[in-house]
Amino acid sequence: MLKSATYSPKDFTQLTFHDAIPAFVDGRDTPRAYLERCLETIAEREPVVKAWVTLNEEGARAAADASTARYTAGRPLSSIDGMPVGIKDLFMTRDMPTKMGSPLYESNFPKQDSACVQALRAAGAVILGKTVTTELGMSHPGPTTNPFDPSRTPGGSSSGSAAAVGARMVPAAIGSQVVGSVIRPAGFCANYALKPTMGALHRGERLAFSQSHIGVHAGSLEDMWHVSIEIAKRAGGDPGYPGLFGGDRLHPPVVPRRLILAETEGWTSLDEDTRAAFEQLLHRLERGGVEIIRRGDNPLIEAFERAISTSLVLCRDICAYELRWTLNNLLDQFGSGLSESLMSRKALGESMSIDDYRMALAQREEARRAHAAIAPLADGLITLSSIGPAPLMANTDRDSGITHTTGLPAFNAWTSVLGSPAITLPLLAVRGLPVGVQIVGQQHTDDTLAGIGRWLSDRVLASVS
Amino acid sequence: MLKSATYSPKDFTQLTFHDAIPAFVDGRDTPRAYLERCLETIAEREPVVKAWVTLNEEGARAAADASTARYTAGRPLSSIDGMPVGIKDLFMTRDMPTKMGSPLYESNFPKQDSACVQALRAAGAVILGKTVTTELGMSHPGPTTNPFDPSRTPGGSSSGSAAAVGARMVPAAIGSQVVGSVIRPAGFCANYALKPTMGALHRGERLAFSQSHIGVHAGSLEDMWHVSIEIAKRAGGDPGYPGLFGGDRLHPPVVPRRLILAETEGWTSLDEDTRAAFEQLLHRLERGGVEIIRRGDNPLIEAFERAISTSLVLCRDICAYELRWTLNNLLDQFGSGLSESLMSRKALGESMSIDDYRMALAQREEARRAHAAIAPLADGLITLSSIGPAPLMANTDRDSGITHTTGLPAFNAWTSVLGSPAITLPLLAVRGLPVGVQIVGQQHTDDTLAGIGRWLSDRVLASVS
Repeated sequence: MLKSATYSPKDFTQLTFHDAIPAFVDGRDTPRAYLERCLETIAEREPVVKAWVTLNEEGARAAADASTARYTAGRPLSSIDGMPVGIKDLFMTRDMPTKMGSPLYESNFPKQDSACVQALRAAGAVILGKTVTTELGMSHPGPTTNPFDPSRTPGGSSSGSAAAVGARMVPAAIGSQVVGSVIRPAGFCANYALKPTMGALHRGERLAFSQSHIGVHAGSLEDMWHVSIEIAKRAGGDPGYPGLFGGDRLHPPVVPRRLILAETEGWTSLDEDTRAAFEQLLHRLERGGVEIIRRGDNPLIEAFERAISTSLVLCRDICAYELRWTLNNLLDQFGSGLSESLMSRKALGESMSIDDYRMALAQREEARRAHAAIAPLADGLITLSSIGPAPLMANTDRDSGITHTTGLPAFNAWTSVLGSPAITLPLLAVRGLPVGVQIVGQQHTDDTLAGIGRWLSDRVLASVS
Repeated sequence: MLKSATYSPKDFTQLTFHDAIPAFVDGRDTPRAYLERCLETIAEREPVVKAWVTLNEEGARAAADASTARYTAGRPLSSIDGMPVGIKDLFMTRDMPTKMGSPLYESNFPKQDSACVQALRAAGAVILGKTVTTELGMSHPGPTTNPFDPSRTPGGSSSGSAAAVGARMVPAAIGSQVVGSVIRPAGFCANYALKPTMGALHRGERLAFSQSHIGVHAGSLEDMWHVSIEIAKRAGGDPGYPGLFGGDRLHPPVVPRRLILAETEGWTSLDEDTRAAFEQLLHRLERGGVEIIRRGDNPLIEAFERAISTSLVLCRDICAYELRWTLNNLLDQFGSGLSESLMSRKALGESMSIDDYRMALAQREEARRAHAAIAPLADGLITLSSIGPAPLMANTDRDSGITHTTGLPAFNAWTSVLGSPAITLPLLAVRGLPVGVQIVGQQHTDDTLAGIGRWLSDRVLASVS
């Protein structure tokens, strides 16, 4: 099992679940045995990786046994029946506390399941535990380390979910993204991950942000899709949203004819090794017949890039305004206990008027229109999931007054602003560490985007020497 | 003080606050003294009206004293500084439990303030207590009686807020509407009330419905507006919404040139006395120069009426689907304790697929488009707030499989579907009981709609013999 910092997309094998099902069906393997293997990996790696806040081994074993019985009876509930899943500790679980990465929620135990957890259980999934999140899903980090190098961040805020999947502890985990909290950590930890269309997966009690999304981290595109669609079928999307569109199975491979290279705010911060690795991948795609359209090729793309060019600041402002209510309540109740980072967000939120917020919403709408305008030009956008491999934990990226202790979300904020689906693929290795390639589609094209991801992934992994 | 069932719009005087401010400023009166008068009324009438779940007299007195000190210092915080306000018991208050009209929430005490409560306190308002709601804001009634006839319902789900204002216990109270829960009870209890544009007032933790709204019940249009705008200035609207538009003061009177009579689903259920009283009011308006446009006058209005003609069923279905998650959690946790009415909603929700829900959302969008299409025809719509005066509590209106123990929301569901602002004015008396006249505008025209309401109210009350 890989433990040191030598990631290679070809040699590293993520933990998968979908391909274990035939063995469950014919009795060679069982969900309980699968779970035990996960628990062994956790026992081995958790002391360093620190992906979990709470583990419910007893409950998970009971759920896995029930799943085993369903396979024996020939009646599994879904394609994720028996799958061990980690839940980001921002979401309620009836059998475990929900601590939200904050000492203020240390004893928070609502005895309820968030909508997605309810759906996962109904589909037969095994809720194994709660994964580490940054403080309230913002910047202040938890204890988790990167599974490919413990001196580096796993990314955040879905730190534990990304690390648990990257460390092969579980085949899938639930994360969430308001700025860059699914795609960036997933990229740092060699996950596949979907940050779906805004509203596609029901956020349960987490509706206080206008642009947050539940996302799915997994060791394969198949499992990523299965988890996503089984949640959507049962819990639906956010109230008032149509929910994730697509079939029960991962979309067949889609060969893109044209992809737009999205520079985003991240391009100027790219390190040279990462840029070189990405350009090499793009050239390989071009040789394979995919046309890559660049910023200078079309004024609509230039207009789009300009419209998303302040996404980090836009996300910072929208989130700060929307957080005021929650943070005021916490301070009223406890007097202190928020990190410096959250206190600075609170100060920013308090300094904003409702008209400032309205201007931010208008700017967000403008970016969405600019994105819609480039829809006819290509089958989607391609870019990176981060400005490079995971930084050392001692280092912090500063941007726009917020300290990004889990890496700069410069390649992520724009998709949260747009509410468009984004998928990261673990296709690059830079200095022996994973770097994700990100593809982005128009709203509600999550399923065909996954098909493009499947083709890209197959193609790139087949051609890596 | 009026105690028996003989409502007359001219003779009944609602409790107001805005006109007490000059006396606070010059020291003839104080917010503390104003509060004490409210408490006296409560002591006198609460045994029969039963509007309150919890009263925080001590906290209210302290807040009123602090307000008194601010007036003495010449520094009141806002136009509602010192105003005693009731909070519907669906919304969190840090100093009182939040029981939601359900035994399952009997010990629910989150120690936090909902966003609107936080805003009210910041504006200097005096949070006096929690008002009775139906079970989870749905159909199963609480103990509240109608202040004009204790054998009749106060309406619901904002039963206690409407009754407390109608009984002159407080000058204003917070309610909420998913189907008809602000406008109908306000009409039954001779309140003025605003059900604002969808998203205009931040719902805090109550974001689980896609079409619910915080509304404001008051004894005057002035206080109704002041409470609404002071919340919006501080808490903003729902996440992602621009919030309530308008100035600090109630809009000057707006003379409508044309109003569309909206028949809605309620028209065929109208009782004859109510129809006659309403037609008389319309004729009076026509004689005053307001053109009343009716259904047959324009095919766009006919198309609009058709588009909203199944709003009750649409609301029922959308709410049932959106409630599943919450109700499942409650049943998982407690095993029982939901009313028959909620259990039937749960069964309905469970029977719906995500595609059923998508179809309902599409129908809602269609209705919104049909409403937008009639915008150029008139300054707004006029109709009733209920099919007649408050029914006897023994009676229940049945519609579409849901028992409406607090009166049929046939004149209300459509505005919840549209997300458009609605104001009820206590301008009619039918068989000695109040009946509200409802005016409805396009989204985000709440302030000018209030101006129309002001003109109508002044005009009608001046002409009532």
